[in-house]
Amino acid sequence: MIEKRLDALNITLPSPPKPVGSYVPVVITGKLAFVSGQIPIKDGKVIYAGKVSTDLSVEDAQKAARLCVINALAQLKAELGSLDRISKIVRVSGFVNSPPEFTDQPKVINAASDLIFEIFGQKGQHARIAVGVSSLPLNSAVEIDLIAEIN
Amino acid sequence: MIEKRLDALNITLPSPPKPVGSYVPVVITGKLAFVSGQIPIKDGKVIYAGKVSTDLSVEDAQKAARLCVINALAQLKAELGSLDRISKIVRVSGFVNSPPEFTDQPKVINAASDLIFEIFGQKGQHARIAVGVSSLPLNSAVEIDLIAEIN
Amino acid sequence: MIEKRLDALNITLPSPPKPVGSYVPVVITGKLAFVSGQIPIKDGKVIYAGKVSTDLSVEDAQKAARLCVINALAQLKAELGSLDRISKIVRVSGFVNSPPEFTDQPKVINAASDLIFEIFGQKGQHARIAVGVSSLPLNSAVEIDLIAEIN
Repeated sequence: MIEKRLDALNITLPSPPKPVGSYVPVVITGKLAFVSGQIPIKDGKVIYAGKVSTDLSVEDAQKAARLCVINALAQLKAELGSLDRISKIVRVSGFVNSPPEFTDQPKVINAASDLIFEIFGQKGQHARIAVGVSSLPLNSAVEIDLIAEIN
Repeated sequence: MIEKRLDALNITLPSPPKPVGSYVPVVITGKLAFVSGQIPIKDGKVIYAGKVSTDLSVEDAQKAARLCVINALAQLKAELGSLDRISKIVRVSGFVNSPPEFTDQPKVINAASDLIFEIFGQKGQHARIAVGVSSLPLNSAVEIDLIAEIN
Repeated sequence: MIEKRLDALNITLPSPPKPVGSYVPVVITGKLAFVSGQIPIKDGKVIYAGKVSTDLSVEDAQKAARLCVINALAQLKAELGSLDRISKIVRVSGFVNSPPEFTDQPKVINAASDLIFEIFGQKGQHARIAVGVSSLPLNSAVEIDLIAEIN
């Protein structure tokens, strides 16, 4: 069902990006799946880089946030077999590469939250943090990690 | 009982602040309640804004941290009905809006930890992180999220 | 068994550092142990301080990351009695004290991930986030917190 929803939204999950380092993309404990921080990588390349508002626009940062979610779902699909095993998106953390004066992190991470809600509906209503950070791996504009509840 | 403790401490829980974005304030999975990042909002307005040490004092940032906790408890009360359902405060994350040279994040977040301990006693002894971040939503001085164990 | 592995790696766990504030080092809920953010403290003193790349080298920051892991394990051992009760390292968060232009956070936190894998093997394969932050408690170069699954 979630796959159909992705089709309807014209979203194709990529091959999940390899972790930038010696860890794994998803760890399951009990009914929780912890997904490692995802960055806006496509075909092995960070495509939204820099500090939001100075190096790239809020609109592009929102695209970065969406791409992070898509990459997280690709990781979950690879691990779980099917995204239908997800019973709830529990928590999303959004880290926005921000100069000291940028304070619109919610606007950026809302793009991620909106996409999750579009895909999962009620099951996608998650708790969230959004913070601005001084820098991110590979100069990514956004990093997002999440916790999902699974069956 | 927790309500009485709040009374004794002269704390009135506000109507819980609406999320600044498309997510929900609390998600429950199993026995864990994840509370979204809370900022020092009162009556719909951020009342402690800016970078700690340059724009506001450590003392005011401590008040901000306490207000974040109060807002988190307001969210939990709205979700759980009663704060007495909380069996343990598991984890608190404290993000402090910091210029690069400010290193007293623990002093700021201790105000949150102390308040939680005053309210919950032993049940309030939590794990914690405290970090300095380059900026926060709506220029908040502090953002705090937490995980509670519930019955 | 984990103790033997630590011996083989020439790692001696210190007395666990006291929290810098009013919280506790480890909280257990169900099968999860949440460890508070650990900084590169040895004998009560932060020994890797400053911003990575400007104040200290990536190599020293990697040593800081390893020390944070060692301190986290010391906390877990004090709480659990034996590290053999750990069935899985679930999640590691790495916060790197970074100037705005530093983007090699994964290189720094890989030192933590590698050490965890050396010690725990397959059980040590964790999910992870790595972000750059504007400042950290006591000017620490790195702060690391983790979640372990226990028996």
